[in-house]
Amino acid sequence: MKPVAPHQQSASLSYEQAGVNYDLIDPLKVAAQRAAAATAIHLTSHGFTEVAASRGESAYVVDVGPFYIASIVECLGSKALVADEMRALTGKTYYDGIAQDTIAMAINDLITVGATPLVVQAYWAAGGSEWFADAQRANALVEGWKRACDVCGVAWGGGETPALAGIVADGRIDLAASCTGLINPKERLSVGDKLAPGDAIVLLASSGIHANGLSLARKLVERLPQGYLTPVLPGLSYGDALLAPTLLYSPVTEALHEAGITPHYCANITGHGWRKLLRHPAAHTYRIHSVPEVTPVMKFIQQHAQQNDREAYSTLNMGAGFALFVAAEDAQRTVEVAHAQGIEALIAGQIESGTKRLVIEPLGIEFGDDALQLR
Amino acid sequence: MKPVAPHQQSASLSYEQAGVNYDLIDPLKVAAQRAAAATAIHLTSHGFTEVAASRGESAYVVDVGPFYIASIVECLGSKALVADEMRALTGKTYYDGIAQDTIAMAINDLITVGATPLVVQAYWAAGGSEWFADAQRANALVEGWKRACDVCGVAWGGGETPALAGIVADGRIDLAASCTGLINPKERLSVGDKLAPGDAIVLLASSGIHANGLSLARKLVERLPQGYLTPVLPGLSYGDALLAPTLLYSPVTEALHEAGITPHYCANITGHGWRKLLRHPAAHTYRIHSVPEVTPVMKFIQQHAQQNDREAYSTLNMGAGFALFVAAEDAQRTVEVAHAQGIEALIAGQIESGTKRLVIEPLGIEFGDDALQLR
Repeated sequence: MKPVAPHQQSASLSYEQAGVNYDLIDPLKVAAQRAAAATAIHLTSHGFTEVAASRGESAYVVDVGPFYIASIVECLGSKALVADEMRALTGKTYYDGIAQDTIAMAINDLITVGATPLVVQAYWAAGGSEWFADAQRANALVEGWKRACDVCGVAWGGGETPALAGIVADGRIDLAASCTGLINPKERLSVGDKLAPGDAIVLLASSGIHANGLSLARKLVERLPQGYLTPVLPGLSYGDALLAPTLLYSPVTEALHEAGITPHYCANITGHGWRKLLRHPAAHTYRIHSVPEVTPVMKFIQQHAQQNDREAYSTLNMGAGFALFVAAEDAQRTVEVAHAQGIEALIAGQIESGTKRLVIEPLGIEFGDDALQLR
Repeated sequence: MKPVAPHQQSASLSYEQAGVNYDLIDPLKVAAQRAAAATAIHLTSHGFTEVAASRGESAYVVDVGPFYIASIVECLGSKALVADEMRALTGKTYYDGIAQDTIAMAINDLITVGATPLVVQAYWAAGGSEWFADAQRANALVEGWKRACDVCGVAWGGGETPALAGIVADGRIDLAASCTGLINPKERLSVGDKLAPGDAIVLLASSGIHANGLSLARKLVERLPQGYLTPVLPGLSYGDALLAPTLLYSPVTEALHEAGITPHYCANITGHGWRKLLRHPAAHTYRIHSVPEVTPVMKFIQQHAQQNDREAYSTLNMGAGFALFVAAEDAQRTVEVAHAQGIEALIAGQIESGTKRLVIEPLGIEFGDDALQLR
């Protein structure tokens, strides 16, 4: 292996260095959130109301009487760029997994509010008609999309397949999914009002990096002697490890409902890593006593990006893809229900009275109230 | 004005010449539609069913018991590229109008099935964080989005504002909107089963090109002596004329419901121009006896692209943005309801028994069953 040049080792790699400047995006987000909030009044003219607590949550919820409707649109992000690079290197298409990633971004957010996903719409915007001429890749996208819908028990309603030369980069595709679901019965609504000290924190395992942190992961490739083909484990390249599809968690939340367990709150662990555990605005202390095994690709990224645990857990999922906050007496059964769906899970900690903070005891890390500003 | 070079006049400009190759996209679409149709079965496990007739319609409809839910995701297309060019030429932002265009793409499709739009989600994927640093433009996008929601009486639920360097082209933004609505009462469902000979065809006026045909319109700029600043009318440049925001038609469909008029079918006149009047699969003859006034920008495009009427009406909306198929006795009141909402409208023709075709009598044009293959 080629030695890594010293100047490349001189500093850890942050998300901002990887090219995402949240300072530029956030003022727009704040303005958009204010404007959006002011439109809720329109629902009353139809006899409906918004669930105000869902503003700032992962999905937007409207009370339409017999049940709640939740809806969302979510973007894959830059993971497709890794698939494109790896296709050139290995000849595999990877777009079946990329399809699952895209649907997971929408589904895993939608279910946080207690919704059963019903309909997914596909948004596949290519840089030109030529993208679709690669029939093998296009078919992988279709098949992976279908399979993810099958796993989630959701109907694929339709979608858009525009060719957007000049807007989407040449040879690329911008993938997103919208999803509509029902919270039915209405008692399944989980927007955090039930969250309380004493609740257990159950973490569902991730399969790898999922679809967040990819800007960092792609930047890191420049530091690797064999690029995407650098082994993470014997026989597993960095690129292949990154492309492990995001797990779909709706089978778990649906099975929990059938088992009579209603989570008090859920957090999809995506951008901002474990800081997402602080998502709910209420002031509680989230104490973690057990952390899940860190997937090899996460260890690899942390090591090569020279991130300390605090940096790594504040950016990446570090083996935990989804958090369920449940009544303490439901915790063990929640783990068992997840296992029955083929998803690893562990009781990682509990909620306590106290200042708003996340304490990851096994690692000696603490994140305060200022660690996550999403609203 | 600089004379146009002869070789540029030698042929009319088709949509394929403008860079969109539907032959490459369509096999994917067919594969995706088949895979999507096979997922409908999942709804039954939740106690629901799809409205099968909505497959191939502009929005997907699910029967959830007390009402139907309709959902959709729609892309703006390439109109933002015109706004970007014009911003450089005039200093105006145009993104308030672009926001309206994007919402109109979703809303005007969703209402075709009889739905009341309830929630819109924003998908704003920029080529980099820098896009959002232009505060004037970013604010115009937010304000225009909010205003369009206000016009449609829809709640802006939230959305995504990713920075997608490497996927979205540098300095550009990929805009889309998802929308969820209710068909309530269920009798408002319009997927074409009520469509019958004798029904009147009421056309709602467009404001200009709307957001379809822009690839052609942009290609045409190369032929124009002053590019986007070429006057369409005294004081109105080609660029400004193109950027007239798409009309939002949901106030009309909601007002029709309040007036007790349920359209038998609706067609949003977007890509494929007037061929969209042939959208419904049933075999009827659509006879047009009156055509709406052609907006100046349409006349200009037709003239400079040297399209005959057949070509122009098969690609562009030519002054008609939306078609309502209503019972003959409701036709005049439908026009009046539209006028009361500030939208021009006219009774343009009627449906007759006969082979499937569109006959535009005043222009001597006929389109047959093979003119539109959307399913």
